[in-house]
Amino acid sequence: MSYEVIDGGVTAANGFKAAGVAAGIKYTGRKDMAMIYSEKPAVAAGMFTSNVVKAAPVKHDMEVVETSPFVQAVVANSGIANAATGEQGMKVCRETAKAVAAALAIPENAVLIGSTGVIGDQIPMDRVLPGIAALADALSDTRQAAADAEAAIMTTDTVPKEIAVRTVIGGKTVTIGGMSKGSGMIHPNMCTMLAYICTDCSISKEMLDKAAHLDIPDTFNMITVDGDTSTNDTYLLMANGLAENPVIDSEGEDFDIFMEALHYVNTYLARAMAKDGEGATALFEVKVVNADTKENAKMLARSVAGSALCKAAVFGHDANFGRILCALGYSGAGFDPEKVTLDFESRAGKVRVFEKGVKTGFSEEEATAVLSEDEVTVVADMDEGDASAVAYGCDLSYDYVKINADYRS
Amino acid sequence: MSYEVIDGGVTAANGFKAAGVAAGIKYTGRKDMAMIYSEKPAVAAGMFTSNVVKAAPVKHDMEVVETSPFVQAVVANSGIANAATGEQGMKVCRETAKAVAAALAIPENAVLIGSTGVIGDQIPMDRVLPGIAALADALSDTRQAAADAEAAIMTTDTVPKEIAVRTVIGGKTVTIGGMSKGSGMIHPNMCTMLAYICTDCSISKEMLDKAAHLDIPDTFNMITVDGDTSTNDTYLLMANGLAENPVIDSEGEDFDIFMEALHYVNTYLARAMAKDGEGATALFEVKVVNADTKENAKMLARSVAGSALCKAAVFGHDANFGRILCALGYSGAGFDPEKVTLDFESRAGKVRVFEKGVKTGFSEEEATAVLSEDEVTVVADMDEGDASAVAYGCDLSYDYVKINADYRS
Repeated sequence: MSYEVIDGGVTAANGFKAAGVAAGIKYTGRKDMAMIYSEKPAVAAGMFTSNVVKAAPVKHDMEVVETSPFVQAVVANSGIANAATGEQGMKVCRETAKAVAAALAIPENAVLIGSTGVIGDQIPMDRVLPGIAALADALSDTRQAAADAEAAIMTTDTVPKEIAVRTVIGGKTVTIGGMSKGSGMIHPNMCTMLAYICTDCSISKEMLDKAAHLDIPDTFNMITVDGDTSTNDTYLLMANGLAENPVIDSEGEDFDIFMEALHYVNTYLARAMAKDGEGATALFEVKVVNADTKENAKMLARSVAGSALCKAAVFGHDANFGRILCALGYSGAGFDPEKVTLDFESRAGKVRVFEKGVKTGFSEEEATAVLSEDEVTVVADMDEGDASAVAYGCDLSYDYVKINADYRS
Repeated sequence: MSYEVIDGGVTAANGFKAAGVAAGIKYTGRKDMAMIYSEKPAVAAGMFTSNVVKAAPVKHDMEVVETSPFVQAVVANSGIANAATGEQGMKVCRETAKAVAAALAIPENAVLIGSTGVIGDQIPMDRVLPGIAALADALSDTRQAAADAEAAIMTTDTVPKEIAVRTVIGGKTVTIGGMSKGSGMIHPNMCTMLAYICTDCSISKEMLDKAAHLDIPDTFNMITVDGDTSTNDTYLLMANGLAENPVIDSEGEDFDIFMEALHYVNTYLARAMAKDGEGATALFEVKVVNADTKENAKMLARSVAGSALCKAAVFGHDANFGRILCALGYSGAGFDPEKVTLDFESRAGKVRVFEKGVKTGFSEEEATAVLSEDEVTVVADMDEGDASAVAYGCDLSYDYVKINADYRS
């Protein structure tokens, strides 16, 4: 391991400031607008929702990431998603970018925008504009500033999600700090999430893009909370070069070190989002090992992590291996059921429930103990090859239904 | 409409008898074994789960339907699925077929078997054998016998599902009667279900097979309760020819009349299963109209019907059109969000919530009234062509979680 985890979030890397304020966009008495600012223009890579219905800020960011050589600020709000808002929604983005650019004296095409919340409602610009002014005033590189920004992008999230790691590349200390939010409408490609990762690494835009595209399929795209792929999913990775390491512009040892640290950051945030899924009482991790191909391993893992019946069984601390097997079976991947072995694992231990196609004589009591922890793993050994994958889900509780039966009001 | 709906179930068609008894397989004090018997050998068509993990009785039935020219009996149990049971599970099927054949004096390869319940447990033959004897004794063509058989295949179902229709083909009265059970692990291709349809129509095995394969993609395969495709799904259609209509051995007017009546039977049972989905308080019907292709219409309809967030909103009587749009968006079908119009409909009226890409000024009160009925429809007009499809789902309630958090115990 060539990196160390440090305390911090989006302000951990050199030259990144943040802020979070209460602009009264939808919620009252809580922060609902966040800003990230890089002192030095940063190269950016982004990955966005695969949903045909893309929110206005997603369309805006896709264009900025593709056409701007550098970015310098992100402004994000919670409460209203600015999705399914037609031409008015795009106008809101243009006006927002203009106001942020003016407040920070940066080009308009260096401003990224994120929104999360209710679909279909329009964003009130009369609240956004004072919010932007307040954010610009509050920008700071402190620990608290990162926490404020994290708080401001939360919707039904119950805990903020942040992480920072430090590594050494070419003799220079490189830091990566990130934050993200969930926690419903979460399903691969991408999940309902905003994730912002800031690094002072010196890296070309091309290699930054490559890093994001290599790692996200195994991390953020392996999360599922409810099978609903949101209209707003946004992952942004920004690198401002202030670490002054020799610029990473090709594959090699430096890129590998960066990838290893980035992978930790992405995995940490992905797991944290799954564990804080709406109504969740436990992280439900699905490890598929010895599958025939990587693609099949991923399909199998996602199928189990996304199964309502498996998720409800985890909530009930029930070692219902039949549902696991059933979900493997309809994943779309072919395999021989007679070769499958299933283990449940957690801090409380490990119990083998199914071996080579037949139920074992496991103790229900022991299994219930294993399943009563707040992080539960099922390991499915397919005995078909040597490919593996991990999917991150959560259990399905009464509270998921409660939260979503009346989210809008 | 060339058919009429009549009172009855699997014994409605000429020559079909049924029975249901309490064999103590898993449940106590309730019927858990059912039998259907045709006085005359019947041609059969079947459709089975697409799950890689197929229950032993599914494998058994697939072979019988493919290799036997005629069938004459079905025996089914609830409580234990006989899935993931290895070689022992197949042995149970062989012994069951043998016992039924002996009790009814019919060939072993004329016996179909169905099981539904917990995956992974073995079926106790010491209870099945007396159960078969009791069933053979109790066989009858009465209304009550059909009701007994329906009761015996229920698991978490709250109501029995049966239907019968009568039509005239070639001057002869032809009857189709059916029963089915749900109600969790329900998702297209096929759903978790056992469905048995008995008709006295005179029709060739080939045309019967064609009828099943033409109609099921638009009926049973458009149901979803929870996205989990079971290991045991079985649809069986049996025709014994006792109506003595001129045998249907090709397409034409007679086949069309038969198809129309069969489509009604299949649609009725599919809707009834969706409405009685685990924990459901409402049927959630999703009609997609004016899509570009039939395939896309189906993908769009299924995506919305299967969305946990849309289902939870229906439970909360919340006109959350944003989630509908989101689920259309990640269905896999391409479309222009700016052209979409969405209506909610029920017995209480109709309300347009989204028109050509923008939220309408609908009354929340009115929308809540429409969504408070026990059958709710959303109509998505894609304005892309003239293809349409309907998917049948249900809402997501606390009780779904409750039922499934501890199903095994």
